[in-house]
Amino acid sequence: MRRKPRKGKVLPNLKVIPIGGLNEIGKNITLLEYDDQILIIDCGMSFPESEMYGIDIVIPDFSYLIENQHKIVGMVITHGHEDHIGAIPYLLRYVKVPIYGTRLTLGLIENKLKEHQVIADLRTINAGDTIKLGDFKVETIRITHSIADALCLAIETPVGTVFHSGDFKIDHTPVDGEPIDFFKLAEIGKKGVKLMLCDSTNAIKPGFTASEKNVGEALEKIFKRAKTRIIIATFSSNVHRVQMIIENAIKVGRKVAISGRSMENVVALATELGYLNIPEGTIVDLKMTKNIPDDQLVIITTGSQGEPMSALSRIASGEHRAVKLKPGDMVIFSSTPIPGNEKTVFNVVNKLFEKGAEVIYSDVADIHVSGHAQREELKLLHSIIKPEYFLPVHGEYRHLIEHAKLAESLGTPHDNIFIIENGDILSIGQKNVTVQKNMVPAEAVLVDGLGVGDVGNIVLRDRKLLSESGLIIVVAAIDKASQTVISGPDIISRGFVYVRENEELMEEARRICEEALMRCEDKGISDWNTMKSQVRDSLGNYIYDTTKRRPIILPIFLEV
Amino acid sequence: MRRKPRKGKVLPNLKVIPIGGLNEIGKNITLLEYDDQILIIDCGMSFPESEMYGIDIVIPDFSYLIENQHKIVGMVITHGHEDHIGAIPYLLRYVKVPIYGTRLTLGLIENKLKEHQVIADLRTINAGDTIKLGDFKVETIRITHSIADALCLAIETPVGTVFHSGDFKIDHTPVDGEPIDFFKLAEIGKKGVKLMLCDSTNAIKPGFTASEKNVGEALEKIFKRAKTRIIIATFSSNVHRVQMIIENAIKVGRKVAISGRSMENVVALATELGYLNIPEGTIVDLKMTKNIPDDQLVIITTGSQGEPMSALSRIASGEHRAVKLKPGDMVIFSSTPIPGNEKTVFNVVNKLFEKGAEVIYSDVADIHVSGHAQREELKLLHSIIKPEYFLPVHGEYRHLIEHAKLAESLGTPHDNIFIIENGDILSIGQKNVTVQKNMVPAEAVLVDGLGVGDVGNIVLRDRKLLSESGLIIVVAAIDKASQTVISGPDIISRGFVYVRENEELMEEARRICEEALMRCEDKGISDWNTMKSQVRDSLGNYIYDTTKRRPIILPIFLEV
Repeated sequence: MRRKPRKGKVLPNLKVIPIGGLNEIGKNITLLEYDDQILIIDCGMSFPESEMYGIDIVIPDFSYLIENQHKIVGMVITHGHEDHIGAIPYLLRYVKVPIYGTRLTLGLIENKLKEHQVIADLRTINAGDTIKLGDFKVETIRITHSIADALCLAIETPVGTVFHSGDFKIDHTPVDGEPIDFFKLAEIGKKGVKLMLCDSTNAIKPGFTASEKNVGEALEKIFKRAKTRIIIATFSSNVHRVQMIIENAIKVGRKVAISGRSMENVVALATELGYLNIPEGTIVDLKMTKNIPDDQLVIITTGSQGEPMSALSRIASGEHRAVKLKPGDMVIFSSTPIPGNEKTVFNVVNKLFEKGAEVIYSDVADIHVSGHAQREELKLLHSIIKPEYFLPVHGEYRHLIEHAKLAESLGTPHDNIFIIENGDILSIGQKNVTVQKNMVPAEAVLVDGLGVGDVGNIVLRDRKLLSESGLIIVVAAIDKASQTVISGPDIISRGFVYVRENEELMEEARRICEEALMRCEDKGISDWNTMKSQVRDSLGNYIYDTTKRRPIILPIFLEV
Repeated sequence: MRRKPRKGKVLPNLKVIPIGGLNEIGKNITLLEYDDQILIIDCGMSFPESEMYGIDIVIPDFSYLIENQHKIVGMVITHGHEDHIGAIPYLLRYVKVPIYGTRLTLGLIENKLKEHQVIADLRTINAGDTIKLGDFKVETIRITHSIADALCLAIETPVGTVFHSGDFKIDHTPVDGEPIDFFKLAEIGKKGVKLMLCDSTNAIKPGFTASEKNVGEALEKIFKRAKTRIIIATFSSNVHRVQMIIENAIKVGRKVAISGRSMENVVALATELGYLNIPEGTIVDLKMTKNIPDDQLVIITTGSQGEPMSALSRIASGEHRAVKLKPGDMVIFSSTPIPGNEKTVFNVVNKLFEKGAEVIYSDVADIHVSGHAQREELKLLHSIIKPEYFLPVHGEYRHLIEHAKLAESLGTPHDNIFIIENGDILSIGQKNVTVQKNMVPAEAVLVDGLGVGDVGNIVLRDRKLLSESGLIIVVAAIDKASQTVISGPDIISRGFVYVRENEELMEEARRICEEALMRCEDKGISDWNTMKSQVRDSLGNYIYDTTKRRPIILPIFLEV
């Protein structure tokens, strides 16, 4: 039951706790905590940074949630992108929580949970619904984004309303014909919003994002002039983009085949749920496409970011079973490279060109639009919501700070805008708002294979060193009684030099270790740690002087 | 002496042999070979691809040049960028060759040779000079690029003129007031060009590059509004940019300090040679800047690509000795990230913002122009030179193919345009031109520390595996007589898991190796290779089942 503020009674503060999504693009998750009740908004993953060697994905630190799981009243998901749902299976290992989302969002979560063999309590909501979770009254409002069925949230709390934009853009002509409910937003703004959390991804980009419809028009032109097979890559979750591709294919009398596991899954799911509207006879099995003339076929595929194992990468390198590239094939990237992916994308582009394909990609045509609001759209939302306090979220520091300046330029007082970090608490009282730094664990948790969090800084540092210069192992057997070397030292290396072509260097390395051990024996040193560090230093110096490299040197002694 | 074609005598073909710079950005080097004479054009390096673990730089394969060094008549360098001069010290280890270049170019080469402690035969030329090297008559023509003193080349050979654009853009208002010699180019075109080799870096970009002067104007506006210290990063070799920064600093009454070793070197060199014109009293020592008010100081620094060890990166992370960032400092990136560097650049941008600096970079202002001709400029050069045959160079495949299409659209016959690879030979006779595939070794040669070419695919593959999951070493001592294990197996790992937190896993791993060895003993197997592969398989399967990781497993046996 929601407690009404009573005269003379001081209400608890509302704590806003982002444990992901600040100073980074990805792993978005925000907690609202009020009077022993925690509401979770989104639960995303992110992709590893380049120095996170061997890491598959990165998830938020859930320790605060695990510790306080009795307080959790529910989780609301704004939309079905990986950076908003990807960490759910990991949280559910520890914590039971009902998950609220729209149908497509929950469908995507369900697919993910199946892979992880996890069962969850999923509760479908529709845009416009209001759900009561403890003292939180969560009103959901339709918003446009690069995935269907996205929501923003107006959360009524005892200390005022918190508005969370989710990820959004302002698309006045969305593909599904369901635009943003501006009336509702205006109503919320008019009633008064205490705090707004707002997507900052494109806070640096001036102007407006183009409508998703524009991509449809660009594709139509390209499809119309195409005389050969069309292979088009895009994000599988962008159901609207897929819908437009299919509609354009039909317009020019082509069949459509689907390539790539995630694309197959999403198309199946979205069709079943009615988000994709595909006339019967349009889709053909990828294996059957050999019988279809090239100018009557479109293949929709994953791999628009050049992901090495994706369908498009395999097509480009000739490793795809069902799709063999032919000279003249038209390959379209309906995407732009996410920063950091440029090289991999261009590698695939080059391979496709080398195989004789005509490649249309971001550098040569406008066949993609962003899903995130640019500056003019942000201004519009700020002007409608007119929050008392503002917390920019979903962005690197440079995005957050530009978004903060934008808010200030629109009249939000400087002191009412907060740039905080994951793990900080924004504490909202009736009268004032304070920031408590570093209150909640919010370091990145690294997932490597089945291991969650078992690869930390020490392991990563070793992987980095190993990747840079490899390692040299020095192994020797030591007699228990006399504490003298009775076999070895032998030298084994990996990732250092090609041994067969460097036998002299390796023999000299062995000799140097032998000498170091003999010096120890002469001096009567039998402490293994000292002996090992002597070997490490002598060999390390020799290797550095000869090669200017610093491989890891690992002395291993066996007592016999 | 140049032999005149005699009646009835068949002339040898001219061979054009690019051994770097095709299907890549970087390590530009082209050989022209005619009748036992080889002319080398440029000798550049490139930076390693992300999967080239631990590699410092990449250089061309010089084996053809080493084998045929008696044929080499000289080397002409078009300009002083690393991708045109960076591999010279490595070539000079094997081959003696006179190197021709303009003063700034040779100055930069000399700096480089000093570092490598190599002496060379450097011969200064001026734009406009013609040099005779064997049968090659090399005419040098001034061209504009993002470095001063750049040349393009018209090389008269017995089979016709070869025109090489070098790297270029068409800047009608260059900073040094020395524009392209269009008369000369037109004259060359009119006389007839057999083959053109032309820079393709920006062959995809429509329109014209802006003039370097535009950057000066943009900087002037920024400098005029700045009220605090200005720190500005750019490429050290862009002497014109540095000149404009200094002039703008003087205009607003600021002193200039230089930060970063390569920036210091280039400024010293360019000043000495007269390419930089700095009024006395303008430059101050970086260590003395504490006494200068913030609004009277500009610091020019390296690190515009976010290079981890550069001055700007050290400033951003608070590790620079002389420059401590203060809130309000203005930091300008006068550059755009080279594809692949986006993440590192943005990391530095974020750190600078976090320290309270105002950061101006490519996403927010036009403070950089490219040094490479875009499509309209390329069209202009093609129209002036009107070559009979065309070979696009300096670009990835996607650039080469777009450049080829551009040439075709301007009237060069399709069959006269060649897309070839490093190591192919374009063989030009009196009557026809043919391509001979894969004639000359031209694989990338990897430099790691002092080692040149000693890190090959096997070592790189090991480094990749090590970086992804680390390694597990299984060590055991085996009795010589009985061939049984008398000590161990012990398990040591690096880069796998944090051992202290995974003792159970490591103990189980040890037990599994022990069992594998016992099974061998039971079966009477004493062949070490079999024993090792049993250990590798058993442990590998266990580790994969438990962790879904595949560390390198390295069994080491010692005979005692």
